Amino acid sequence: MSEARKYLDIMSDVIEREELVAPFWPKEGEIVVLDQTKLPFERRTFQADTAQDMADAIREMRIRGSGAIGCAGAMGAYLAVRSASHRPEKWAELVQPLRAARPTALILLSAINEVLNQAQDGADPVTAAAAAAVGFFKHQLASEKAIGSYGAKLIPNGATVLTHCHSGALAGAGYGGRALSIIRGAVEAGKQINVIAQETRPYLQGARITTWELDRLNIPVTLATDNMVGALMQMGKVDVCVVGSDRLAINGDLVNKIGTYLIALAAREHNIPFYTATTHYNVDPDCVTGKDIPIELRCSKEVLLYQGNPVTIEGIDAIYPAFDITPAALLSGIVTEVGIFRAPYRKKLIKYLHEQRDRQ
Amino acid sequence: MSEARKYLDIMSDVIEREELVAPFWPKEGEIVVLDQTKLPFERRTFQADTAQDMADAIREMRIRGSGAIGCAGAMGAYLAVRSASHRPEKWAELVQPLRAARPTALILLSAINEVLNQAQDGADPVTAAAAAAVGFFKHQLASEKAIGSYGAKLIPNGATVLTHCHSGALAGAGYGGRALSIIRGAVEAGKQINVIAQETRPYLQGARITTWELDRLNIPVTLATDNMVGALMQMGKVDVCVVGSDRLAINGDLVNKIGTYLIALAAREHNIPFYTATTHYNVDPDCVTGKDIPIELRCSKEVLLYQGNPVTIEGIDAIYPAFDITPAALLSGIVTEVGIFRAPYRKKLIKYLHEQRDRQ
Repeated sequence: MSEARKYLDIMSDVIEREELVAPFWPKEGEIVVLDQTKLPFERRTFQADTAQDMADAIREMRIRGSGAIGCAGAMGAYLAVRSASHRPEKWAELVQPLRAARPTALILLSAINEVLNQAQDGADPVTAAAAAAVGFFKHQLASEKAIGSYGAKLIPNGATVLTHCHSGALAGAGYGGRALSIIRGAVEAGKQINVIAQETRPYLQGARITTWELDRLNIPVTLATDNMVGALMQMGKVDVCVVGSDRLAINGDLVNKIGTYLIALAAREHNIPFYTATTHYNVDPDCVTGKDIPIELRCSKEVLLYQGNPVTIEGIDAIYPAFDITPAALLSGIVTEVGIFRAPYRKKLIKYLHEQRDRQ
Repeated sequence: MSEARKYLDIMSDVIEREELVAPFWPKEGEIVVLDQTKLPFERRTFQADTAQDMADAIREMRIRGSGAIGCAGAMGAYLAVRSASHRPEKWAELVQPLRAARPTALILLSAINEVLNQAQDGADPVTAAAAAAVGFFKHQLASEKAIGSYGAKLIPNGATVLTHCHSGALAGAGYGGRALSIIRGAVEAGKQINVIAQETRPYLQGARITTWELDRLNIPVTLATDNMVGALMQMGKVDVCVVGSDRLAINGDLVNKIGTYLIALAAREHNIPFYTATTHYNVDPDCVTGKDIPIELRCSKEVLLYQGNPVTIEGIDAIYPAFDITPAALLSGIVTEVGIFRAPYRKKLIKYLHEQRDRQ
């Protein structure tokens, strides 16, 4: 058995032993990817043999979510090194499609660079790359567990936790990604937790993936449409809100999946804590406030369709802002891999970024 | 031509001349109903020959919305009288299914009673019933136009108006129902208006009916999902919000389709006016505040499906509160058929109810 294979097997063992819901996993030295676009109706997997395969998987949203993309980038870089182990001059070319697979994900570039640097420095590049890729995964996993362990303290026993979109295991290394790490952490701390998952139109990540993932983890979950959060709070059915973070400005303003802001407004009105979970990769020091983060307007066709079926007649216009901005003032705290930050956030986030980036 | 037929023809003429989008209409003395459950993909109509037919149409949601149910109740009572014109003792029995067709709609009972009373007093019961049913329709129509004319003043030229669910012509006598009467009134006052229609999960009345109706009236409409209103306000894309009212407590608290409350919270945050349109039939003097109005929990199957297709795996729970409560403090005003009320509402709504009910 090769040394590289030993590292990959360690990753498989961790995934199995810790009951991770992983976006991909090694199997007998090869990489098997779960196709998230088919979930929850079909559990389809495929093998990724090259960096190009992994780039395609990211580009086609078969692997999605910040932590998962990071891990996939690292593993894709390993596949590049493996396929040209004696030609280091080829590596940069082989990982090029991987670098370009998700332009907004800073974590992807960090992950690729980390693996290539270690391959370059290693006696055996393939072994070094495997070690680095598995190391990246383990680091992500540790971050998720840390978020879970800090975040668990915020969730009372018996609480109903509302979450939006999918910020879970499949979007990370397999433990619970960002928001769902807090929920999994609370459950592992012995607490009885119920989850309300918002369906998250138009792409229905909440209905399709969050429910599926929590169901796999035997955590009770109830599905709600996105317009119900106010009523549910009026009825006393929500105790805490946790969401992920697509990006955080350095003042703590949160850019996240469309609909997040409404949850935060309703939570403030009903004195319900509202937390975001993040790692340092999602904090953008170049954005002074949320207004510096442009809100992406996506193709409105998605709004006019539901799973390919039209919701209205032809010729009707639609609009699709993919994210909204939740001002830092609406956050009860930011749960990270190094602890929970409370307002004011700016200085704390700057220090956090420096410390985390220095470590790399 | 019978005298009754003349009244029915007057109704047809009004519908045609005023370009009404009516939920049903007389045609050569018979009543043709538009099946709203098939909209917007199929424009199916059927003939209602009896009070039972009209009761079925209401019960099966083929006719829906407060004003439309009132008009249908009146016309159903006319059909009862027509089918037993010489046996007034049969009328009560014939309208029984009609009375029971929508237990929460007070307007239905008022409409039926009005027609039967006039039939009893009339020299020719059928003519008197037709006159009363058409009179009820004309009164509803006048209310809608009055809402339109008062409400139009609240809408600036060039405004983008956000609305929720369907509170339009098909839910009324055909002009604009409640909320959309304001929009139609503004357009008829020569203003350039754009509408954003929220899709309104789970039943998608906004996507299916509001867009269809505005498209028929050549009023520009853009479809959005229900979780976008915060982002759209952040982007400066909403100038005014108008919604209907399933029920108003006497203090002005508004019970309306699930999601209304979130719009009102976001509107307050962004200093955007938020109005509800109503007639006196929807003001409930027995409800001191919105908390006296129980929030109906409907069958959660609707949340798990989209147009019959599952949104998640089997075995996932869901919740479906059909309405939420928007506290009076979040309303900028209540637009009625007699004018616009501003806070505090209680005394004004009590006086309004007394005056309107005395008129009947």
